[in-house]
Amino acid sequence: MKKITVHSTAGVGNLVCGFDVIGMAINEPYDKITIQLSDLPGIRIKHTDEFGLPEDPEKNLIGICLQALINAGDEQTGFDVTVHKNIRPGSGLGSSSASCAGAVVAANALLNNRFSKNELLEFALEGEIVASGGRHADNIAPAIFGGITIARPTDPFDIISLPVPTNLYVTVVHPQIEVKTADARKILPKEIPMKSGINQWANVAGLVTGIFKNDKALIGRSLVDEVAAPFRSKLIPGYNDVMNKSLQAGALGGGISGSGPSMFMLSESLAIADSVEKCMQEVYKKLQIDFKTYVTTINPQGVKIIESE
Amino acid sequence: MKKITVHSTAGVGNLVCGFDVIGMAINEPYDKITIQLSDLPGIRIKHTDEFGLPEDPEKNLIGICLQALINAGDEQTGFDVTVHKNIRPGSGLGSSSASCAGAVVAANALLNNRFSKNELLEFALEGEIVASGGRHADNIAPAIFGGITIARPTDPFDIISLPVPTNLYVTVVHPQIEVKTADARKILPKEIPMKSGINQWANVAGLVTGIFKNDKALIGRSLVDEVAAPFRSKLIPGYNDVMNKSLQAGALGGGISGSGPSMFMLSESLAIADSVEKCMQEVYKKLQIDFKTYVTTINPQGVKIIESE
Repeated sequence: MKKITVHSTAGVGNLVCGFDVIGMAINEPYDKITIQLSDLPGIRIKHTDEFGLPEDPEKNLIGICLQALINAGDEQTGFDVTVHKNIRPGSGLGSSSASCAGAVVAANALLNNRFSKNELLEFALEGEIVASGGRHADNIAPAIFGGITIARPTDPFDIISLPVPTNLYVTVVHPQIEVKTADARKILPKEIPMKSGINQWANVAGLVTGIFKNDKALIGRSLVDEVAAPFRSKLIPGYNDVMNKSLQAGALGGGISGSGPSMFMLSESLAIADSVEKCMQEVYKKLQIDFKTYVTTINPQGVKIIESE
Repeated sequence: MKKITVHSTAGVGNLVCGFDVIGMAINEPYDKITIQLSDLPGIRIKHTDEFGLPEDPEKNLIGICLQALINAGDEQTGFDVTVHKNIRPGSGLGSSSASCAGAVVAANALLNNRFSKNELLEFALEGEIVASGGRHADNIAPAIFGGITIARPTDPFDIISLPVPTNLYVTVVHPQIEVKTADARKILPKEIPMKSGINQWANVAGLVTGIFKNDKALIGRSLVDEVAAPFRSKLIPGYNDVMNKSLQAGALGGGISGSGPSMFMLSESLAIADSVEKCMQEVYKKLQIDFKTYVTTINPQGVKIIESE
């Protein structure tokens, strides 16, 4: 195999109470990344999208991750990369993780899967750290391992896959405003009340149990974030309206995706997920803010190879 | 049925990372409570143990809980109660919960189970609040529901039962020193670093997953408490030695039971659980502190009716 193309999907990081720890891969939107193995050592990157990302491999996240992979293996390896991103950087939908995870999974396939998923995670984190300024794997892990994952922040990370509940639909709205990850981090307090912490891990325990038992009501009522949402929601116009109207429309629960501005809601039927989408659209039409919405599902496998030759 | 006797078991509250939320019922030690339905309204309590607890029903935890149950039902109900406690108050082994849960479960059986488990929990909490000064159900819930429980601190509490892993042994040591629950609470900070919080709910997510997957290694490495143990361990002589030696003997992990001074360790075989007991004994013999140890298992049912007539 000399050339491979992957779909690298978006994800919901910071799964509400699972702040910085639990993330989930979703099927829409996704980036398309093609990598060709080359006799010429080094990395060459071309973007065919319109986001104006740097193509210099030392400044491009994909370049940084692939270099980490090359450094750990054969320094004579060469890659030609063509990227078409659909996940807008700064959307809160794991755009940087999609780039990083997609690139290392594709490159590894070209190298006969010489690296384990845990090793790929560490390569991809090199890019994610540059992108977000923090070492957290709640977006990278589901992109590489698929589905819903826990990333215990040990060194190396301890990644634990959770089962994917059946009949769970994800509605996402991306209001087209900019929230810088750095700003969304700065707004958070460095300390939290013990009481909020206790509520948070009680909700995490409920969420994980709901996922294992496929208990949608428990999943829904556990989706409460007391430590980040109260602060970050202030950066997202329409937050309260989206939450309230979506819940009225029958959504189980939801919150901010990653560090925002995107939001997501979970529903137990496609019909409800569609109603939730309409609520989201109404909120941002009224606010005269451009937006994109997606009605999608959890992606059980993460990065997916769609072509190879 | 006019008279009933129950075994009301000890429990491990504050299941390490699950501080204030996750608790577990164990089979040893246990209290024995006999309740007789009486034509004479009111509550009469007699203790046959040596702990010197008040027998005035307005000052006795059992009296307080049974009064709450009577107030919610028929005010003409009368109970004669005989209690033999084996779980020493202030041990950290859920002594007050055993009294409260045992009494309400026994009384409810005499009343043809007119109250739900959730209602019994609220009656039992009336006593627990007097005992500990806080509204938390991490000991009461497993005593009433059995096994391992999550108590989400909503109003009313949201109690979620977890599966009981197979082949899991519990070794407990109770050094005979006094740690007042109030002191163990006062020593805790009111705020915690965000980073500690993130680690804590990552560990809770790992622990719950380990319990569902019956993954002993995951359970073990998730048993880390960053918010209470660093402070409370200072009140327990021998804490570090018990932890280190037990882990060396093959224990999966463990920590402080409740607010201490008891400690517990989990092991995946009886042989290891026995070795852990020896380690604990050595530590306290060397420190010349009296102690009791128990090698036991998780109690899947909580309060158990052993006689009725």
